[in-house]
Amino acid sequence: MFNRPPVSTRPRVVIVGAGFAGLAAAQGLRSAPVDITLLDRRNFHLFQPLLYQVATASLSPGQISWPVRSIFSGQKNARVLMMEVNAVDTLSCTVTDGRSVVPYDYLVLATGARHAYFGNEAWEPFAPGLKTIEDARALREKLLRAYEAAEKTPDAAERRKCLTAVIVGGGATGVEMAGAVAELAHRTLRGEFRNIDPQSMRIVVVEAGARLLRTFPVELSEKCLTSLTGMGVEVRLKARVTDCDARGVAVDGMRIDAATVIWAAGVQASSAADWLNARADGSNRAFVSPTLNLGDYPEIFVIGDTCVAISDGKPVPGIAPAAKQMGGYVAKVIGAHAAHKPLPPPFKYRHQGDLAVVGRGSAVVRVGKISLSGFTGWVFWSLVHVMFLIGFRSKTSVALDWIWAFVTRQRSARLISDGDASCLATPAPSDFQHSRKRDSTTQGGGHAA
Amino acid sequence: MFNRPPVSTRPRVVIVGAGFAGLAAAQGLRSAPVDITLLDRRNFHLFQPLLYQVATASLSPGQISWPVRSIFSGQKNARVLMMEVNAVDTLSCTVTDGRSVVPYDYLVLATGARHAYFGNEAWEPFAPGLKTIEDARALREKLLRAYEAAEKTPDAAERRKCLTAVIVGGGATGVEMAGAVAELAHRTLRGEFRNIDPQSMRIVVVEAGARLLRTFPVELSEKCLTSLTGMGVEVRLKARVTDCDARGVAVDGMRIDAATVIWAAGVQASSAADWLNARADGSNRAFVSPTLNLGDYPEIFVIGDTCVAISDGKPVPGIAPAAKQMGGYVAKVIGAHAAHKPLPPPFKYRHQGDLAVVGRGSAVVRVGKISLSGFTGWVFWSLVHVMFLIGFRSKTSVALDWIWAFVTRQRSARLISDGDASCLATPAPSDFQHSRKRDSTTQGGGHAA
Repeated sequence: MFNRPPVSTRPRVVIVGAGFAGLAAAQGLRSAPVDITLLDRRNFHLFQPLLYQVATASLSPGQISWPVRSIFSGQKNARVLMMEVNAVDTLSCTVTDGRSVVPYDYLVLATGARHAYFGNEAWEPFAPGLKTIEDARALREKLLRAYEAAEKTPDAAERRKCLTAVIVGGGATGVEMAGAVAELAHRTLRGEFRNIDPQSMRIVVVEAGARLLRTFPVELSEKCLTSLTGMGVEVRLKARVTDCDARGVAVDGMRIDAATVIWAAGVQASSAADWLNARADGSNRAFVSPTLNLGDYPEIFVIGDTCVAISDGKPVPGIAPAAKQMGGYVAKVIGAHAAHKPLPPPFKYRHQGDLAVVGRGSAVVRVGKISLSGFTGWVFWSLVHVMFLIGFRSKTSVALDWIWAFVTRQRSARLISDGDASCLATPAPSDFQHSRKRDSTTQGGGHAA
Repeated sequence: MFNRPPVSTRPRVVIVGAGFAGLAAAQGLRSAPVDITLLDRRNFHLFQPLLYQVATASLSPGQISWPVRSIFSGQKNARVLMMEVNAVDTLSCTVTDGRSVVPYDYLVLATGARHAYFGNEAWEPFAPGLKTIEDARALREKLLRAYEAAEKTPDAAERRKCLTAVIVGGGATGVEMAGAVAELAHRTLRGEFRNIDPQSMRIVVVEAGARLLRTFPVELSEKCLTSLTGMGVEVRLKARVTDCDARGVAVDGMRIDAATVIWAAGVQASSAADWLNARADGSNRAFVSPTLNLGDYPEIFVIGDTCVAISDGKPVPGIAPAAKQMGGYVAKVIGAHAAHKPLPPPFKYRHQGDLAVVGRGSAVVRVGKISLSGFTGWVFWSLVHVMFLIGFRSKTSVALDWIWAFVTRQRSARLISDGDASCLATPAPSDFQHSRKRDSTTQGGGHAA
């Protein structure tokens, strides 16, 4: 499969991206006779499936992140460099960030994906997506600021707008965001405001397809719909966002004014395919061989959300377990090739199940033939996610936070930081004077100089 | 004391600032026949004494912050508005942020302080201080990025610079930062790098005075000095920073190249005194009467770090317990005045003790006649801080994090986020090729296109 002979000394494996796929590849090569360099533009691995909980103030960023260096401090054949790769030179077999150059014998590209607007990039500032810690922090801030603005404004339409959130996309991210926003509005913030009732929050999910969670079994989609509507979330199926601006969205031409619009409608692979001029699909995911490498450059593997891999005639889904499996697989291929052993058979994806949480103590789960929903689904979901988290420290802390949040309905990370306040709805000048009559000589009502 | 008669209906108390002083004032008025409006530009109360632990990656911002709304959700006579006051109109008795106007009968200004450069404002970008969550995040990022840059650079002088941190100021903040940075370098990061040894980190504390912790008893200053030098921290007493730029500082004219310079040398009150044209000291702290209000406007109280209060002939120190005592005191004054009862005697500060933590399991403590240091001091310090934290939720989580960090020497919040990377030392272009000889045909060494 490789057009170059195996190297005779310890080959250099360069892995770009410390997401699920990249980590699994590096860890899978633990005992292989190779020198691994793991490159990432961040210094931490992010547990992306829980990002929506940062966006809705349940978890702190530090609770779903883990320093890459810590993960590999004990793996002597691996080193970690913080570096944002932006080019691959397939001739000299090097990657670079424009300043430093790192040579490879085997290259694993696992650079992930970003959310995508498919021709409506102008909507991005108004409808942010959720892929990074910064995205999550910005969304949390937008969401929390909307309540603060609603509490202050004397204008009813403005207040209505502040108390409306639209989630574009009814896949797992959209559904989980909708459930978490409903949770925050209907339970956590109850009793904390004097002029508004957070329970009156309007939450709309707009989904172009005929059902929520379209990659899940139909029965789970239906349970999810029932759960969400039971929580007061409006679900619009077969509906399309036709416009999006600072004041909200248009759904099939009808305006919905909303201070918070969240984009959960699709992703686009990172530019790894461009670096290589590789054949890619409409989402810029590189087509790979059955062994997850490129036909032209068999020493280059593309895995995770950056590739479109086929297993059993079907595309492998863009979820964490699939990324981990791909990472583990290429580790086996590289390990075998480096050790002059027979290569493993083509990559085969094993689907472990479908999971989505729909709100407080409610989730839909399908594992094999078993379907769970409601509270038992949620308990299962929680266990699976806690188990997945890297490192004991993160696990206990997150588990405690969940249990605590569940028992008290409190949120632990409700910070609005300084920074971009442009998302803050601007209330009209108003006078906060208490409305009852006053007879004091100190009474004022004028405006400050 | 008040030049206006008490109002006959429920008077409006406006409190600006939800720090220790403002919170204590609002909470102290819990049962008073008044309507309280608490204004803050943030939506959370920050437990500032632990901010240095966010800056050194031990705690997450969410763990030392608490939503102001949560604190007051059960206090029916209080409402909370997120608003950045920038003017007071003493004629109409209103405060404003330029858009909204809030009238008061009693006004409590508790707007805190920022770090100050005393004529060397040009140094601020190079020597950031530590007063807000953003400050702490920026500092954490700068500190962690310096290690990453050191790991990458092939230049020995650059590496030396990356592995040097200078802390300007030997007060409690400076000492605690120095201890925490030493901790991070010497213990947490051990074994995580391949090209550098974080234990070789050079940490310098520059203090203009003759001893560290100059407001503490002399004996504690000496213990603190012994602890810090024992941890490998260089302490320069009677030394002054004479210059500061992107490459480091000059101390009494001698250059120290350092990627991280931390300003802990002084604070300046917020602009509350300016709003009122009040008489203020060199740090812009307003002079207040023995009842903590202003002679010209007795209905206006200035408390916490924003005022200079005198108790027993001595200025009240700018620490959290003093701020809380002032807040509690003005609540009593306002409550008594509003209820037409006799006013309490002038404010008297009770000094509860001195506390500073010097690193892992080491602190200096003086409470009454009892002095503690080393591990017993640290245990005492931990207990006091955990007790101080608002709300049970925050307490358990922080306590667990401390215990965990103590046992494992791990840090839970080592995130470098996107954003300003200007603090990142720029390494020269380099080749990361492993140095041993290679004989592979795939070996490359050139630079990418």
